[in-house]
Amino acid sequence: VRWFVHPLRVRYQETDQMGVVYHINYVNWFEIGRTELIRQMGYPYRRIEELGLLLPVLEAEAKFRQPARYDDVVHIYTKIEQFTSLRLDFSYEIRRQDPSIAETIRFQAEAGPANAGEVTPQGELLATGMTRHVWVNRSWKPVRLEKEAPELYELLASINRFTNS
Amino acid sequence: VRWFVHPLRVRYQETDQMGVVYHINYVNWFEIGRTELIRQMGYPYRRIEELGLLLPVLEAEAKFRQPARYDDVVHIYTKIEQFTSLRLDFSYEIRRQDPSIAETIRFQAEAGPANAGEVTPQGELLATGMTRHVWVNRSWKPVRLEKEAPELYELLASINRFTNS
Amino acid sequence: VRWFVHPLRVRYQETDQMGVVYHINYVNWFEIGRTELIRQMGYPYRRIEELGLLLPVLEAEAKFRQPARYDDVVHIYTKIEQFTSLRLDFSYEIRRQDPSIAETIRFQAEAGPANAGEVTPQGELLATGMTRHVWVNRSWKPVRLEKEAPELYELLASINRFTNS
Amino acid sequence: VRWFVHPLRVRYQETDQMGVVYHINYVNWFEIGRTELIRQMGYPYRRIEELGLLLPVLEAEAKFRQPARYDDVVHIYTKIEQFTSLRLDFSYEIRRQDPSIAETIRFQAEAGPANAGEVTPQGELLATGMTRHVWVNRSWKPVRLEKEAPELYELLASINRFTNS
Repeated sequence: VRWFVHPLRVRYQETDQMGVVYHINYVNWFEIGRTELIRQMGYPYRRIEELGLLLPVLEAEAKFRQPARYDDVVHIYTKIEQFTSLRLDFSYEIRRQDPSIAETIRFQAEAGPANAGEVTPQGELLATGMTRHVWVNRSWKPVRLEKEAPELYELLASINRFTNS
Repeated sequence: VRWFVHPLRVRYQETDQMGVVYHINYVNWFEIGRTELIRQMGYPYRRIEELGLLLPVLEAEAKFRQPARYDDVVHIYTKIEQFTSLRLDFSYEIRRQDPSIAETIRFQAEAGPANAGEVTPQGELLATGMTRHVWVNRSWKPVRLEKEAPELYELLASINRFTNS
Repeated sequence: VRWFVHPLRVRYQETDQMGVVYHINYVNWFEIGRTELIRQMGYPYRRIEELGLLLPVLEAEAKFRQPARYDDVVHIYTKIEQFTSLRLDFSYEIRRQDPSIAETIRFQAEAGPANAGEVTPQGELLATGMTRHVWVNRSWKPVRLEKEAPELYELLASINRFTNS
Repeated sequence: VRWFVHPLRVRYQETDQMGVVYHINYVNWFEIGRTELIRQMGYPYRRIEELGLLLPVLEAEAKFRQPARYDDVVHIYTKIEQFTSLRLDFSYEIRRQDPSIAETIRFQAEAGPANAGEVTPQGELLATGMTRHVWVNRSWKPVRLEKEAPELYELLASINRFTNS
């Protein structure tokens, strides 16, 4: 099983008065992780919406182990957990990076789709999670991705095979 | 000059690690203040968008005097500062309420449009602000409110006359 | 099993470009639900933090059924699912209210602790969820609530007995 | 006059149901711009808070010209507008980048403090703004930076001389 990675730096706004990241922001980061996964494969989520498709969240789960703090560099690790023409499930890990090595990893992560999936999660585990999604059109009716967007379907299928190889 | 009032309680999520309300949330509260002003006059902002009209913000200003804290009851005071068929400007005051009297004031504020504009700002002044808006259609082209939504135009004109009487 | 209720109106800021409430805001509303539950019993969450206690989230889960929209009046229904001296679990329902009856229910809900727990969930079910928490001190070390804040422990125990009676 | 730059990509969560970035997020980006300016000079804002200093916002202003959209790459341009031992003012420009050249600019911007201030704003102007700040200690009493953190004072003075040279 292989992961995609996206780095980010914790924003001041993401803290609360406990002095740590407000827990709900991890779930925001999950969303960034899955859209960046799709982008790394060359298919921006913006283009999905231009096709008239939406990918709303049916379920979300998160477990919080250690708090992230302002200015931390964290990595969002994302992989496709399940994939059909109707549904798409992702799982996630949020990990804190050692600032001294964060920059190196970042450039590695940005090196592009070729090795995008080669990443092994590293750093202190802060949170894990899962989201389940369904493909719908603009009227919120379920659609079959294979029919509505065959190119995107093939792309996700190939990521899925790769991830679970 | 007369004000409209809307009470709210500070949410945990609205704090940051300084232990006070993250400053940008006051600007969120300004938006709540102006939509509640219009609602108190019997015209929900939702209906404005159903007419195909949007009221984007051209300019916003805020001055912060004292920080609000988690669980405070604050009052958003809003008034129309300027009004034409093309433009709409609001000004705002955010004031902290004494918890013991907050409830009373709240019920007074909810008593409805009849006396909605009769309110005199009270409580510790935390922030003041101003926003400038322009009426546009869904393609973001400026429109004349008098032509596109005469009923709403008349309503705002009457509030404006009342406020500045 | 009995529920506590807290009403709120959807803010413009809570929407996203799908035209509905951004899914993560439901999890924000869960937090509002549980702090309001404690407040309705006469113990503001602010006072808990003044005792040096924090109640961070260990796990959160949400299932999304129907989207809420801007300006909807929704009810957050909250109950204590599990309670010990170390842990506290809540479950939640978010339901959309018919605007015409929303106001009546609101006043009923505000009538105070005496009948706070008597509420039967009503309205269209939009989302359900669960959160698990642990009591910690300011150094994020687990503590026993019974020892650190016996008054609060007794209060929660009484709510718990009541809820599950 | 010279500017510091920080690139970012618009998050889904930052949109609202007008289909564009919710206006208040630009003010969030201003904060990211000023903390990144200080970081580029080798002084993370986190270290400022470790010294017991806070830099709350006294005033904020923003003018909105064109909306940013989901997935846009925008540049936050920041400069120090005024600087004394007691006060610090910043001004900002938010500009949309052509995606094809966005990556190049990004790496240039990350090349480090040596040429950090050499940037000339480019791209479509979306918003401008200003914030005024005051140095305070943890009890929110004003302090003189020159006395409390002479190293930081010297650093900001040197940026200020450079910016206005």
